[in-house]
Amino acid sequence: MPRTKGDHEARRRDVSEAVWRVLAAHGFSGLTLRAVARELGATTGLLTHYFPTKNDLVAHALDLLERRSAARPRRAADQGLAAVRAALLDILPLTAETTAGNRIWVSSWDTALADPALSDDYGRKYAQSRDKLRDLIATAQRSGELPAQDPARVAAAAQAFVLGLVVQALFDPAAFPPERQTQLVDDYLAALTSRPPATAHRA
Amino acid sequence: MPRTKGDHEARRRDVSEAVWRVLAAHGFSGLTLRAVARELGATTGLLTHYFPTKNDLVAHALDLLERRSAARPRRAADQGLAAVRAALLDILPLTAETTAGNRIWVSSWDTALADPALSDDYGRKYAQSRDKLRDLIATAQRSGELPAQDPARVAAAAQAFVLGLVVQALFDPAAFPPERQTQLVDDYLAALTSRPPATAHRA
Repeated sequence: MPRTKGDHEARRRDVSEAVWRVLAAHGFSGLTLRAVARELGATTGLLTHYFPTKNDLVAHALDLLERRSAARPRRAADQGLAAVRAALLDILPLTAETTAGNRIWVSSWDTALADPALSDDYGRKYAQSRDKLRDLIATAQRSGELPAQDPARVAAAAQAFVLGLVVQALFDPAAFPPERQTQLVDDYLAALTSRPPATAHRA
Repeated sequence: MPRTKGDHEARRRDVSEAVWRVLAAHGFSGLTLRAVARELGATTGLLTHYFPTKNDLVAHALDLLERRSAARPRRAADQGLAAVRAALLDILPLTAETTAGNRIWVSSWDTALADPALSDDYGRKYAQSRDKLRDLIATAQRSGELPAQDPARVAAAAQAFVLGLVVQALFDPAAFPPERQTQLVDDYLAALTSRPPATAHRA
């Protein structure tokens, strides 16, 4: 019986799922054709049909990470400070699924930093993410929920805060359960709201 | 002429230097016996004398990272809020040397997360680092420079903030030159000092 297009696409999805599970368990340093084949219950030979080289496998993994991150469920888009809060919480490893996604992101930094073009691409991605956060912060400032300050500067700091919280939560989940992460985000927002409009510069 | 103990130690230092340079340029994903041999201008055969397996090479790299981080120069230990500021700035990639060190740390997260024992070890290291920060914060609270709050909670947030700033600065050095990073740390400390003693909980 000839293989149909549907079979082919189902197979591709299975392969992608296996790549994701290998990444979630072993990171990019553990991503090999052999590990994916084992996860899939297939031969390494079959995998080379999809990924002729290790670079093809890594490129697929990075693409998968980007697509899954873009498609991940997000909190309903509120307005003002609630929207800022939702955007920050959306980044954190608060569930098993978002923990896996974050673990793969953090793992991908090694690969990304080693490749100048990819590193630039990551730099642009984080800049876009800061820009979105900046716009949400500016809206909260206009509604008076946040004091007037350079919103780009506030966004850069807030993004730094959540990225670092991701890293700490991944290495020490016992010290950073979801309620602790949420509490720290709320502390952060409380400090923002009480911040004086012009911050003093320390030499 | 027989080799002396001094020759041997000098050779080991050269090997370590070559490992460090490979890590700074290519991260753990680019750390291979071949890359170190090329950096050293030696044969891969010579390297297997020092590192019989890839695991031995990685273990040496992790040990080197830990020792160099522990031995890195730090700002003079001030008291109070100035000591908190110094501790935060000591972490950031503000020079070429600390940029290399941070780049290697971030790159090592992939390797660390893939190994449960190493991941626990990293978790403990970051907990120790938070504890030190907590003690500095508690001192600044006692002297009245910071409002009274759970110092461990303030330390966890501050460490998250600097770790995330490290990541952003590595991917986008143009957006985060040293003066920008310092400005963001000063913004952060300014917000801390103006923070209300009891932060509101948002549901």
